[in-house]
Amino acid sequence: MPVKDKSKQKIGIIGGGQLGKMMILAAKAMGFYVTILDPTPDCPAASIADQHLKADFSDQAAIKKLAAKSDLITYEFEHIEVEVLKELEAAGYKIYPTARSLEIIQNKYHQKTVLKQAQIPVPDFIKIASLADLKTAAIKFGYPLMLKSCRGGYDGKGNYLIKAASELETAFAELGAGGKQLLAEKYIPFQKEISVIAARGQGGEMVVYPIAENEHQNNILLTTRVPAALPDQLKYSAEQLAREVLEIFAGVGIFCIEMFVTDSAQLLINEIAPRPHNSGHYSIEGCYTSQFEQHIRAIAGLPLGNPELIRPTVMCNILGSGQQGAAEVIGLQEALKLANVKVHIYQKKISRPGRKMGHLTATASNLSEAAHQASQAEKVIMIRGKEDSQ
Amino acid sequence: MPVKDKSKQKIGIIGGGQLGKMMILAAKAMGFYVTILDPTPDCPAASIADQHLKADFSDQAAIKKLAAKSDLITYEFEHIEVEVLKELEAAGYKIYPTARSLEIIQNKYHQKTVLKQAQIPVPDFIKIASLADLKTAAIKFGYPLMLKSCRGGYDGKGNYLIKAASELETAFAELGAGGKQLLAEKYIPFQKEISVIAARGQGGEMVVYPIAENEHQNNILLTTRVPAALPDQLKYSAEQLAREVLEIFAGVGIFCIEMFVTDSAQLLINEIAPRPHNSGHYSIEGCYTSQFEQHIRAIAGLPLGNPELIRPTVMCNILGSGQQGAAEVIGLQEALKLANVKVHIYQKKISRPGRKMGHLTATASNLSEAAHQASQAEKVIMIRGKEDSQ
Repeated sequence: MPVKDKSKQKIGIIGGGQLGKMMILAAKAMGFYVTILDPTPDCPAASIADQHLKADFSDQAAIKKLAAKSDLITYEFEHIEVEVLKELEAAGYKIYPTARSLEIIQNKYHQKTVLKQAQIPVPDFIKIASLADLKTAAIKFGYPLMLKSCRGGYDGKGNYLIKAASELETAFAELGAGGKQLLAEKYIPFQKEISVIAARGQGGEMVVYPIAENEHQNNILLTTRVPAALPDQLKYSAEQLAREVLEIFAGVGIFCIEMFVTDSAQLLINEIAPRPHNSGHYSIEGCYTSQFEQHIRAIAGLPLGNPELIRPTVMCNILGSGQQGAAEVIGLQEALKLANVKVHIYQKKISRPGRKMGHLTATASNLSEAAHQASQAEKVIMIRGKEDSQ
Repeated sequence: MPVKDKSKQKIGIIGGGQLGKMMILAAKAMGFYVTILDPTPDCPAASIADQHLKADFSDQAAIKKLAAKSDLITYEFEHIEVEVLKELEAAGYKIYPTARSLEIIQNKYHQKTVLKQAQIPVPDFIKIASLADLKTAAIKFGYPLMLKSCRGGYDGKGNYLIKAASELETAFAELGAGGKQLLAEKYIPFQKEISVIAARGQGGEMVVYPIAENEHQNNILLTTRVPAALPDQLKYSAEQLAREVLEIFAGVGIFCIEMFVTDSAQLLINEIAPRPHNSGHYSIEGCYTSQFEQHIRAIAGLPLGNPELIRPTVMCNILGSGQQGAAEVIGLQEALKLANVKVHIYQKKISRPGRKMGHLTATASNLSEAAHQASQAEKVIMIRGKEDSQ
């Protein structure tokens, strides 16, 4: 019987948004002590964390303070300066996923280069350092052409879909301002966007979640349906690709691997997130082990849990609607009247149009029933800014 | 579309133990603000509550302060002075279950009298005000004879099983000291102890959970198995009894109705708890809606959720073992290696022999497999006091 009490490991999370909050809800059920670092006093995770260091994410001293208070560090977003993480690792602190994994993944050019070298299928891409490079890319890849910032993008921010040569200059000026690193990517017409949530433990053991099918609007995730409507062979290939990716990055914790299913039924990796992901929220009600519990188990060195689907599940994001203002939830009662609909509210104080304010999940004995319930719920619930609050 | 935002209701909980903690985990996912009242600075619910009033449960001013900070009040245990709750209700505060429900239930003599008057089957009982009364009861009911404090008992505390006339005096002196109200109850030989978790909403709507079968040791719950091994007719009767009980008390929130299945296959109500109950913990993993989420939905005036069982589930309590001292968890890793075993650790700082320190749940496609996994997990996990901590 080992004497080390793993439940006594203190967990530090960089970021206190909804992902941090849902990590803590899982960690607290298992009895962990959690400190978050987030500049916002009333961020979603604030009230349920044991401690809250209110500091900017770029505040290296604060990150060191978080490490001093914690036995292991994780994060809910990938735009963190890795230098301080590397320094902490060198000093013996445990950070999962590791600084090395994060360093490659957070730069899309490096991420794609490493994947390509490992013969993982990715859309063709070129580094863009000048307008001339972009023009060369346009000749090579044609239009539409995807221009991306190598760092810092999310929910489509930092991406520019160039439709014609007349837009090249504007796109380059917009994304490349201040000498930002860019890459151009061949635009992939796809039939589906899927994501594979997978976890890898400290000993290299892995579990892969059922393949999820995503629907985006304006680059923001709207809906995830599980299981994805795909031939078994493609599901198997997607799962294998996810396993290879986790091996390549020696990932520890939950990773999300977003893929395109092209019109010719090929899989191409779109992007990788080294953390629990919006498209894995379905796992809270849908799977025997949620992505958040799994992440905590993986980083704490505990055995991984069963990722299997309990039954078909559909997740819809609840985005802020109307105007900006103090968040107000409308129609919660009507949504919860629907059978097996669960509503998660992130407790963000301010609602802004398009901001992720919550999500809802419907489970049912078949996917079309789950989709029906989710879509009914989505129609009746709304989070918006109060009119008189600005 | 109603404009009232029910998620903005602030919830106050009297008590910050494991039941309070699990209520908050459910409430936080739905976005509620929660204040607890508990004298212990590092009680299980403390770190995840928005606010913590550190005060004794008998501190009426503190309970009023809690009410002033909350839109609705609930509680995790029934030994609260109802006078202050009544006063608050009269002043317009919402308390669920109501002070009236609580007042009857918290006094076992009143509870049983009300049930008996409503023709709900309960074991025969007599009020005991003197040793002479107890002797009369012994003649009427025979031995063994159950003597109970009318108030304040839990986990067998406040109960005395009198095996012979020679124990009458000792039992009366022990439980009746200081003029405490007592009752004597005919001892019921039973084949099973079951409990029915049920919820009633503010509009009188009800849901009943699958019948759970309990095993106690030294009056403390050890194991709950669901579904109970009972003929359908008895399950149906137990469910109907639970519905009647909730109507009688006009309960709002989760109630637990413990019943005996007698040797002659009759149902007798043993005790009622006006709150989520240890024997309902199985619902976290076992049911589509946990008893804690259900309680929050009921008291917040939201529609009740689906109480159905996902699949067979066995829950085992993890009681403090060894000596008293700073709590240490042994074997978490081994327990989590078992398929579909989840471990809940309450984060009580001090472990004492027999103290409820956590619980574990196993789910499987059949009950015997779930029982096997739970019993394997129970063998490898232990929470004990550290030897050098006292």
